[in-house]
Amino acid sequence: MEIQVVENVLKLNDELAALNRQNLHAAGVVSIDVMGAPGCGKTALIEATIPLLAPIRVGVIVGDLATQRDAQRLARATSQVVQINTGKTCHLEAHHVRQAIGRLDLRQLDLLFIENVGNLICPVGFDLGQDVKVGVFAVTDGDDKAAKHPYIVTESQVLILTKIDLIPHVPFDLDLFRADVKRLNPDVTLLELSSTSGQGMQAWVEWVKSRMICASGHAESLPG
Amino acid sequence: MEIQVVENVLKLNDELAALNRQNLHAAGVVSIDVMGAPGCGKTALIEATIPLLAPIRVGVIVGDLATQRDAQRLARATSQVVQINTGKTCHLEAHHVRQAIGRLDLRQLDLLFIENVGNLICPVGFDLGQDVKVGVFAVTDGDDKAAKHPYIVTESQVLILTKIDLIPHVPFDLDLFRADVKRLNPDVTLLELSSTSGQGMQAWVEWVKSRMICASGHAESLPG
Repeated sequence: MEIQVVENVLKLNDELAALNRQNLHAAGVVSIDVMGAPGCGKTALIEATIPLLAPIRVGVIVGDLATQRDAQRLARATSQVVQINTGKTCHLEAHHVRQAIGRLDLRQLDLLFIENVGNLICPVGFDLGQDVKVGVFAVTDGDDKAAKHPYIVTESQVLILTKIDLIPHVPFDLDLFRADVKRLNPDVTLLELSSTSGQGMQAWVEWVKSRMICASGHAESLPG
Repeated sequence: MEIQVVENVLKLNDELAALNRQNLHAAGVVSIDVMGAPGCGKTALIEATIPLLAPIRVGVIVGDLATQRDAQRLARATSQVVQINTGKTCHLEAHHVRQAIGRLDLRQLDLLFIENVGNLICPVGFDLGQDVKVGVFAVTDGDDKAAKHPYIVTESQVLILTKIDLIPHVPFDLDLFRADVKRLNPDVTLLELSSTSGQGMQAWVEWVKSRMICASGHAESLPG
């Protein structure tokens, strides 16, 4: 009985995710699900990325158990922000995103970041209708986090290691981290950056732009 | 149907948790469930605490999705360590702890740390049979984490803010964090410390010792 229920929940989620994907593609919007532990720097990354992407028009859906704090921060970078408060739910599901999409003007957007609830585990299994899943790790959280959370590594198309400006102040074996990532997912793109210092941000911005070109099928559709 | 299943799972968990509590109390072992985000410093805290508690005899049950890395680290501090690999399960449940207790020699222990899977959300709702729930936050994860994860704040008896040696290097409004904690749980004990520099560790060690005295009902039963 239990397995049946879980299957039903996931089936409903997948149906709504397909609907989200269809709606976003119809509007020409590329979407990126940003996943990572609480405090790894997801909001800071998106905040720093938006101005670097101009004139690409960026919206953000941001999930947290509680508070509007992330939306307030992101509202300084774009007017198209929707905060979802999940209560006790530890990840975003497709129905959350569906609800939030309804509050955005998709015709005014080229790119949508979906900032998931801070959690290295639960968000991985839920399709939201995104084009890309990005997993974020921070050097301040230790060099063992890829090995200890293999599913986010294997299910992401891009992994970002943030806060590299803090490497001088924390014990972090960069070679060990890179080797764990490579072993778990040889094909993943690993980008090392700091949203604060700006180091490595350009490579990430270029990756997003190239992904948008792939999605649109032709470079001419990109603004700018 | 779904709610029924969830209720059954939680009911079974509570029954096993009660059994764990009974077994631990019968053996005179006080147990502390340590919860917090991935990389917030749970293992480092336990590693640094064990030698400061001597001659109190400490065991550790440590939960991760994958790897034995935490157990390997903790084995340098105590011989009584059991690693649980939960696979894709995002928190420890009472049956995990029951299994792990069976592999410990409780007669050789006074205190048991149960290091939960790195996750600020899911572990909160599961009774493991512990005497105390401790929630851990790190300054490197940002000053908004208490407000954004209210349930771990309200359900913990002690909150620890770790990595305070890194405060000079990160933006962290200590007054804001303290105010959020106070608002959400006026009765909680908040301890600010660094497992690396040792700052604040003595207050935490004293708190653990006093909690053990409460649990045993009389100070004389404490070793040392």
